[in-house]
This record gives sequence, C-alpha cells and structure tokens, in this order.
Amino acid sequence: MNSFGEKWTFTSFGESHGAAVGGVLDGVPAGLHISLDMIREELEKRAGRKPNLDPSLKGRETGVSPRALREPDEVEWLSGVIESDEVTKDQRTKGLVTLGTPIAFLIRNKDARPEDYEWLKHTYRVGHADKVYEQKYGIRDWRGGGRASARETAGRVVAGCLAKQQLEEKGITIHAELVQVGAEKDPALFAETIAAYQKDGDSIGGIVECRIDGLPVGTGGPIFDKLQAQLAFAVMSINACKGFAYGTGFEGVTEPGSVINHISGGIAGGISDGSEIVFRCVFKPTPTTPKALKKLNDQRVNVKMVNRSDACVAVRAVPVVEAMTALALVQFL
Amino acid sequence: MNSFGEKWTFTSFGESHGAAVGGVLDGVPAGLHISLDMIREELEKRAGRKPNLDPSLKGRETGVSPRALREPDEVEWLSGVIESDEVTKDQRTKGLVTLGTPIAFLIRNKDARPEDYEWLKHTYRVGHADKVYEQKYGIRDWRGGGRASARETAGRVVAGCLAKQQLEEKGITIHAELVQVGAEKDPALFAETIAAYQKDGDSIGGIVECRIDGLPVGTGGPIFDKLQAQLAFAVMSINACKGFAYGTGFEGVTEPGSVINHISGGIAGGISDGSEIVFRCVFKPTPTTPKALKKLNDQRVNVKMVNRSDACVAVRAVPVVEAMTALALVQFL
Amino acid sequence: MNSFGEKWTFTSFGESHGAAVGGVLDGVPAGLHISLDMIREELEKRAGRKPNLDPSLKGRETGVSPRALREPDEVEWLSGVIESDEVTKDQRTKGLVTLGTPIAFLIRNKDARPEDYEWLKHTYRVGHADKVYEQKYGIRDWRGGGRASARETAGRVVAGCLAKQQLEEKGITIHAELVQVGAEKDPALFAETIAAYQKDGDSIGGIVECRIDGLPVGTGGPIFDKLQAQLAFAVMSINACKGFAYGTGFEGVTEPGSVINHISGGIAGGISDGSEIVFRCVFKPTPTTPKALKKLNDQRVNVKMVNRSDACVAVRAVPVVEAMTALALVQFL
Amino acid sequence: MNSFGEKWTFTSFGESHGAAVGGVLDGVPAGLHISLDMIREELEKRAGRKPNLDPSLKGRETGVSPRALREPDEVEWLSGVIESDEVTKDQRTKGLVTLGTPIAFLIRNKDARPEDYEWLKHTYRVGHADKVYEQKYGIRDWRGGGRASARETAGRVVAGCLAKQQLEEKGITIHAELVQVGAEKDPALFAETIAAYQKDGDSIGGIVECRIDGLPVGTGGPIFDKLQAQLAFAVMSINACKGFAYGTGFEGVTEPGSVINHISGGIAGGISDGSEIVFRCVFKPTPTTPKALKKLNDQRVNVKMVNRSDACVAVRAVPVVEAMTALALVQFL
Repeated sequence: MNSFGEKWTFTSFGESHGAAVGGVLDGVPAGLHISLDMIREELEKRAGRKPNLDPSLKGRETGVSPRALREPDEVEWLSGVIESDEVTKDQRTKGLVTLGTPIAFLIRNKDARPEDYEWLKHTYRVGHADKVYEQKYGIRDWRGGGRASARETAGRVVAGCLAKQQLEEKGITIHAELVQVGAEKDPALFAETIAAYQKDGDSIGGIVECRIDGLPVGTGGPIFDKLQAQLAFAVMSINACKGFAYGTGFEGVTEPGSVINHISGGIAGGISDGSEIVFRCVFKPTPTTPKALKKLNDQRVNVKMVNRSDACVAVRAVPVVEAMTALALVQFL
Repeated sequence: MNSFGEKWTFTSFGESHGAAVGGVLDGVPAGLHISLDMIREELEKRAGRKPNLDPSLKGRETGVSPRALREPDEVEWLSGVIESDEVTKDQRTKGLVTLGTPIAFLIRNKDARPEDYEWLKHTYRVGHADKVYEQKYGIRDWRGGGRASARETAGRVVAGCLAKQQLEEKGITIHAELVQVGAEKDPALFAETIAAYQKDGDSIGGIVECRIDGLPVGTGGPIFDKLQAQLAFAVMSINACKGFAYGTGFEGVTEPGSVINHISGGIAGGISDGSEIVFRCVFKPTPTTPKALKKLNDQRVNVKMVNRSDACVAVRAVPVVEAMTALALVQFL
Repeated sequence: MNSFGEKWTFTSFGESHGAAVGGVLDGVPAGLHISLDMIREELEKRAGRKPNLDPSLKGRETGVSPRALREPDEVEWLSGVIESDEVTKDQRTKGLVTLGTPIAFLIRNKDARPEDYEWLKHTYRVGHADKVYEQKYGIRDWRGGGRASARETAGRVVAGCLAKQQLEEKGITIHAELVQVGAEKDPALFAETIAAYQKDGDSIGGIVECRIDGLPVGTGGPIFDKLQAQLAFAVMSINACKGFAYGTGFEGVTEPGSVINHISGGIAGGISDGSEIVFRCVFKPTPTTPKALKKLNDQRVNVKMVNRSDACVAVRAVPVVEAMTALALVQFL
Repeated sequence: MNSFGEKWTFTSFGESHGAAVGGVLDGVPAGLHISLDMIREELEKRAGRKPNLDPSLKGRETGVSPRALREPDEVEWLSGVIESDEVTKDQRTKGLVTLGTPIAFLIRNKDARPEDYEWLKHTYRVGHADKVYEQKYGIRDWRGGGRASARETAGRVVAGCLAKQQLEEKGITIHAELVQVGAEKDPALFAETIAAYQKDGDSIGGIVECRIDGLPVGTGGPIFDKLQAQLAFAVMSINACKGFAYGTGFEGVTEPGSVINHISGGIAGGISDGSEIVFRCVFKPTPTTPKALKKLNDQRVNVKMVNRSDACVAVRAVPVVEAMTALALVQFL
C-alpha cells in the first residue's frame, strides 16, 4: 500500500536510486493556488539544508548526510496544475493553480550513485530493512535502500504542503518542532548535542512535538476513525518513528483522574473539541554509524557509510511530521 | 467510519442503551471452527468479571462498574455460521463453523437503564464525549454515552476472537497484560493499588503491554502500511488510549545508536523480521469519579456516578488490546 | 465483499434459511426521519405481494413464489435510530430518526423450511450458483441457496429506502418500472404474458427501465468513477441481471453521430448534465422451472420446485433496481 | 476518483495537452517480466496506427485522428522496475522486471497543440464534457478536453498490459474484437463502412465483444462483488461506452427459461463457473463531426475539427476494453 487517504489520496512512488521519486495527489479541489515557496522551503528542511537548528552551523556541522546537502530537490509537475493566468482572473498568486484532476509530480534522483552501494548487493545492513525486503519480495533494489530510503519522504513533503495550504485557508495551522535530543531538552543545545554524537561516530534519537490549532470542533469520529488513531497511523508511517502519544501521554499514567481529567489533548471520544491538539512522536537513532559498524568489526563498510548518514534523523523528520499531519487532517475537510 | 480492515472487515454497531451492540465480520474464510469458550472468556475479561488481577478479589473489589458485573454478554449469531455437523465431517470441534459469508452477531443490552441517565439529557460530563457528539451530530443518544460507551468494545472482542483463532491456526499468538498501574510496576500490587484509588473515590491510568509471537517474516509493508502504523491505528482506536510505542519506544530517546541499533522491536522498515513484537499502550484514568465530581461541586451527579464507573479502565482494556491487535494482524494473512 | 458504497456504506448479511437477513447502513447523517411506510411498501413489492401489475390479480396468479407471499418482512431495528420525541422537537414525522451512528436491522426468516431443501444437500440446481459456491468455499449452506438467494435483496431494499428518503429531501427522485416481458412491450399485457408462461411451467425474462430526475449537474466523475460505471456496478449486482445500458444504449449502434450526438442520456463525460437520466437493465428468466426440469428428466425435483419459484423475476426486481440506484447516487451527496 | 482496483491499484494522471499522461500501478508482485513489445503493440492499436481492420488501409483511411497517427507513445519508466540482469539470474526475458514497489510511468504529450483549441476557451462542444467539467470544477483545462480526452486511456493500456501478462502466466487470456459497426456485422466490411461515414463527414457506433478463457472456477463474489458487476464497472468507465451485457444479454429477454437456462455466460451467482466468459459493450459515435457541426451551423469550428476526430471510436476502444478487463480480473488473483 503506497497510498494514503480516502479523500485526498496521495500515492507515493520511487526508489532512492532509480530515475525519480514522486507521487500523485488525487482529490485536491480545483482552484487551490500552490505556494512553490513553501514547498521549496519544506524540501530544504527535509533535506537538512535548513534544519531549524543553530543558524550559524553549516552543512555537515548540522549532522546531515552529504547527499542531502548536495542534491537540490527540483519538483517537476506532470499534471493537475495550470498557470493561473490561463484559467482564472484571480491574480493574487500568479503561479500554479490546481485543476481538480490528479496532480502528478516527480523529483529526479540526481545524486544517485549506485556504485557507492555496490557492496550492499550481497550484504544486509544492521538495523535497516535490507534483509526483510529481500525475504518479502524475493528481489531487492539494493541501491541505497530503494523504497526503504528516507528519500521517499520528499514526495510526502510536497503533497503535505498542498494539504497545509488547503488547511491554512480554513484557518488550521500545524507546527512541529524538535523538543528533545537524547536527554537534552534545551533547544539552544540541540545542535551541540548532535555534533558531539557525530564527532563520536555515533547517532542519537529525538522527540518531535506537533501542535494543531484552529481545527473545528467535530473533526474525527467515534469508533475506528478516532482522530488520534488517524494521526498515529499517519505519523507512525514515518521511517524510524517508534512511538506516538497525545494529551496526557505516557507520563500521565502516574496521575489520578481527579487531577488530569480536564486535559483532553484537544480530542474527546475521538473527536476534536476545539482546543489545541498536541502530540509527540519519538525517532530512534540511525542504526548504521561508524561507531556501530566498528563494533560489528565491519571495516569494509565503515568508510563509505560515514559520509552517507544523519547523526539525528529526528531533525529532518520535523517537516515530514507536519506533512503527514496535514495529509491526515485534510481528509476531514 | 465504523468498519475496520480491508480483508477481514469488521463493522461495529450499537448504542450502549439501545436494543443491542454487535457487528458484522466479513471476509472470514469458510470452515473456521469458532471457539465459543474463548469468546465467553474474553467477554468476561472485558466486562471485568474475570479481570486477571488478584483472584481472591470479587466483583466491586476489583474496581469494576456494577453494570458490567451484572450483565452477562450472550452472543446471538445471525448469519455466516452453521452447526458443523450440517456441512462437514470434521468432528474435532462440534459447534459453529463459518460459511465464508458475513458473520453477523448481536449482544442484547439487558441492563440498559436509560432512567439512570435521564439527568444527562441536558448535561455534559467532564472528560466524556457528550458535548462533542452533540456538536458534531446535532443530535445525541444521551442514554449512557451511546456509541462513545466502552460497551461498544464487546463487539470488537467477539470479532477479535475469530481473528485470534485464525491466527493461532497459523501459529501466531497474541498476549497482552497490564504492566503498570499508576506508578506501580509490580503486578502483585495492582489490585491493591486500584482498590486504594477506588476507595478514595478516584481513578488511575495504566499501561498494557502486548507481545506477538510467531508472525512470519514479511508481514506489513514499507510505506504507509508499515506494521507499526497499522498496529498503532488499531490500538489507538480503543477508548481512553493516549499513546502507543514499540521497540525502543519513548525511553530509547536517550540511548545512542551504537547501543540500541540492534533492537528492532520485531519490525524493520515496516515489515516483521521474525522476532517477537512488543508494544505498549497507555490508558488514562476514568474522568468521571466521585472525587473529580466533588471538585466540580456537582453533588447531584455524585451519587449515581459512583456506581457506574471503573477505577482503572486499563484492566478491562487488556482483552480489547488483544482483539484489536488480532484484527490488525489478520488482514495480512 | 458484502459492502456497497464509501460514504453510505451498506453491509449486507444473512442466509435465506438461517436466522435472519439484514444489514448495517453506516454513514447516514443524524436527523433523517425514516418513513416506515415506504419501507413496508417497497418490501411488499420486492416480496411480490404488491407487484405493480394488474391489481385484480392475487397471489400466485401474479407468478410469485408462495414463500414470498406468505412471509411478512418485519424489520427489527437494532441501532442507529431513536424515537424522534426523545431527541428532537421536530414533530413533523413522529417515528424513528437517525442518530448518525450505524443503523443495524434484521428481518427474521420465518418461513425458512430447510426440510424442503434437504434434497439439495447433494444436488446442484441447473442455472443456480449451488455448484460454484461449493467449489469456491468448500462448504455450502444448501438450505435454499444461502447467500445466493434473492431473499438477500430484502436488506438492500431497506437500505435503499433510507437512501431514497435522503435523495428526495434534495429533490432527487428515482422511478423504475417494467417495460418489457418477453417480447411484450405493452404493460397492460404483462400480467397475462407472465401467467401464460407460468401455466406452461416455464419462466420468462424482462427489462426494467429506471429514470432519475433532479440530479444536480456535476454528479459523478471523469475517469473510473463515471456515473454510468457506478450505476452499472450497482445494478449488475442484482441477481439475474444480464445487462445495463443508458442513453442511446445498444440500439444506438446503428445511428450516425450526426443524428444522435445530442442524446446525452443525462451524463456527459461521466458527469451528470442536469437532464433526466434513463437506463435499462435486463433480467433473465428463472432457470429452475417445472418445464426446464422436465427436460432434464428430473422428476424428483419437479414437484417441490414448482411451488418455490417466480415466473418472471424482473417483476420483483423493480424495487431492488430503485434501491441499488439510490444507494449508488447517495454516495455523491 | 482516478484509481482503479484494490489489489492492483492503478492511478491514472494527465491532461491531454499538459506535460504528460501516465499512471502509477501499485500492488504488482516482484519478479514479473514486462513485455515491452506487447505494450508497444497495444499502444499502437489504441492510437489507431494498427487498428486490426483491413491491413491494406493506411493512416487516415482507417478513420483515425491525425494526432493519434503522428504521435508515437513512448513510455518512460520512473520507478518500480529494474533491468533484470541487476537482480535476477532468470535470463529468459532480458529486460525490465518488477520490484514489487509502485510502478510509475509517463508518456509525454509531444503533439499537444493547445493553439488548435484556443477557440474552445469560451466554447463548449456538443456531446463533449466541456460544459459539465466547467460546472463541476469551476475551472477547466480547455486544451483539447483535458482529462476527458481519450488520450487518458493510453495509461490504462500500459497498466492493462502488465495485468494481462500476469494473467497469462496463470493461463488466463482475454481477447476483444469489433463485432459490429453501425448495422454491419461482417468484419470484412468494417473498414469500408467506417470510410463511408468518414467521407460523409459523419461518425458511427460499434460493438466490441470480449472473451475470457482460462479463468478458474470461483472468481468473483456472491453479492456486490459479482464478477459481472466488476466487469461492467471496469468497461463502462471507458469513454463513449453506453452499455454492457453478458451471457444471454438483452437479446435473451424474448427466450423462455426452459430454452436458455443452460447459458451461464461463464458466471453463476456472480462467480465464474469455469466456462468461457463472453460480454459485449457498445460505443456511441463521436459527437463532433463536420456533418454534425454543419447542422449546428458552426462553420468556425468545422475545419479544425475535421482533422481531429475518429469516424468510429469503437475501433480504438478494443485494446482499452482488453486493458480494463485485465485490470478487473487481476484483482482476483
């Protein structure tokens, strides 16, 4: 299943080292003006080139993989959009406007270096999906993880931007940010913490918090379509995400009902109650780091991998959390 | 959306104080022998009459609502099953066998006392879904929460039992249990802890852990149908559930990749890797307790509510977690 | 797949000789007043007790099976509805009103006489689905066709009535009628024609025409969800239906574009254009008639079957065509 | 809804005069060898360059639109496939093999001449969907019909070829052919008949018959997923299709049960019975022909349209009928 959503249906495609990654977004109403600026900015965040950390840091200092830094994600629009001056007199946003038909787009894989992954043809990386893919499909695109690569999330970010734009027109805003890196909870120290792990050839997990404002009362449903279930489904589909919690979450377990029964987390009985929704999700550290590989005594792998991974994937997950949240919410409009 | 699953599709129906609750389970293959014993036992656990706590405790001592204790859940089968001796020579389980057609069943609401809820006609309970229901639908079955009542989960337990039986035939087992009540992690003290909160007119949250064994490698999918996303979706649809985590979970955030990168939690890249899957989910305390209501100074409400609520809903959630897990997994067979 | 529709999802259940037939209708908005009179009348038509033919004819004279004539279809409502005086001040229709939750209902099988079908335990009827059922499921409820029996359509008629009521509130009406029986196209002679075939121990096919008025421009969709495709899917799911055509239909094949290009049949490019939609569907004759069985030299079967079948099933298909059309259209509201 | 199918899900995208048409086919198992030859041949048939009529006829003589004749449909594969020598030792078909991930492909619109359609910006064509599109979406890609153009079916043909290849591996074959043009039923005279209408500046309808062989017993389902309903849904979604019938069809209405009750059309109770399935579908004539436009006295339109339309669209519908049939059947594997 490579599709998400019943009303706005996003179908994702693309191997990380094939011709392109991309998607088709079906169900977008006609007449939505697309903000290419927002898409460019969110793709930059996802690629780690603009990661919302210490702005004085540059490139590799932020713990981001070099491929991500090198490869500009240029979106090519194949269908479903038209230059606004062709069809509408609304000049407020000159640019692309949706036609109400499926919107297909792609991002070419420019820095695909299959030769870097040649050694993977007959090796499975620890903590990666290489082995289960081969077991499941009997065949595997060994070039950099194929579909399992986080590069697939670029398409989600593009689709999520359209969803966010639609939500914003209805007064609904989504804001995600990193709130914890390892044990560190002070944002001012996140960049430093990540840098320390990276220097050590290691990686570390993080927690992303997401806030939804302006959602009308009544969003969601009472049984299987509870709003929290839909959000969990969307967010838990992001690579490396290990948990989802909202409202009183796991911490609330120690508090009696008389103390916390007024905390709804924005949702009552599966349905939004008009207050702010806050949820958190946790991302595990990248498994293939130099230090980890040294432990495995796999020197062959060591050198190449150093340059190809993130020290804290939670950083780059932030725009993806927003995108998946937007795609989950837009189904209810 | 009152249906769950694409292959085994369970459609739930029923208000807590209407004629009946029940469901239709479509997609079950022909020839499955139904264990009525398992269904009876799981319904007893869900009702709180046999809650896997201190076996010396009886009834109200276990913190269970009196209605649950009083009302035997008798399943009436409407379709999709036949006495096995009519159609098959397999005598290993004399009893009901499935026909491959939709299985409809109902459980009558015998202890429905709408008059107990008369005061709710014009009142919304704190921490309950009363208000958002009325805002969403414009109309509301005020008699005890209607669809929002946890009584709806009885149908899920019946459907889940069929799914568990099918899974067990394939060597897949599911076992959930309570692992934390408030701050208490020693199972020997759970009953005592709950009793203390109940005595105080209060309620408390709990954590349920679920283990899945025997799941073949390759279950799940790489993108939106990641196994963890499907499990989270299933489990977060249970009333009062506030969070879901697997593998290294939220606790893992403080550990570097070099230390925890071998912990898969049974899932790699969204696909089962053949090892045991372990996840946890947290349940908040019942919001409407005597103590909570005293704080609100709503004496009118106080008396009646004392007798109608659980001190720790996590206890009765255990069989529902198993049921929803089974319904999620059976889709992949 | 025993469910129909994405927005109003109707799930059908029940064997013809099990405990009951019925269904669950999910997605109906709260506040719809249910006309029990319409439901009763449509069920009478489906049962053949009030078949819109010559009103001077009674019972078996109309070619209807005796079981249908005997068995009153009483609907028992299990959920999703409430007496209107409980929740609303709107007194225009005292009676049942929907709650916005899934509506479950059943019709008990009172005249189920499994013993009449005992001989079928080891026999397959010509032109019936007995054999393929056994091949597909490995097991079979031999008692009167089980799910393959047209009795299953009673549930569709109930659900269709709710859909029709919702459509009528929007000014959309559906009217189906028999327009051909065998070669006969004069409605005044339909009853006579059927009676002749029945007297001869035979059966005959018929064509039902259906007209949809008041459908707003824009209903349907351009590609796979073309309105005509959805209608065809709905109608072709009715037992014994062999063909569907709209607008210029099959007859139009001989006319050049310059003559018939203005005939839209109410649909352009898959989307309603605001004009009346007219479609036709054809029903084959009942396969198991005394005459057919005599040909097969199966005297054993002969006697029992005489009393259990219709001479022209198209008569009783009329309300089912309306029901399925309503269920197809209500998805677009 | 621009997707078809639950197991093999084909999502279609593209405007006829935008950048490209194409699609994403999700659910194809890993390891299927793709026959690019079959795809090329079927696309040629769809384009009308190799239309299975009199082979002595060339190009415009066959009544095909000049754009179709000019524009070679080159498929560009974006994802989901890999050169077989990269991953498999099976050398039987050197070429593309599927990875089990979504297969995205596109066909560039090379002969898109929006300027030819400039006049359409403010005009609606009789018998076309121009007007309802604008009413439905409020916006319209006026350049040649946009999504309503039959060019969209090129993507269906590509996806259908993969489905056909999978079906053929299971011994299931699909063969469609033109069996009637206007009143003419002799295939030897079809080309001549079409040429006569074309010469007269007119157009004519046709009937396509499709035969399915080798389908295992048990394909389909008993209620809403009847095989005939799924086939009708698939085929009625093809542009200009006005009717679908199988087995005894509409003609059978005049025959009594005792005569035709043995004709199953390959389907009993919605389920394939192992015999050949035969169905027919009818296509209306192209509405915008010179003769038709002359009647409307719209001389301005006349000249341009002459060169842009087919005299008998049923010819080019043949491969699309096969493709949609294959996509419908492959869901059941």
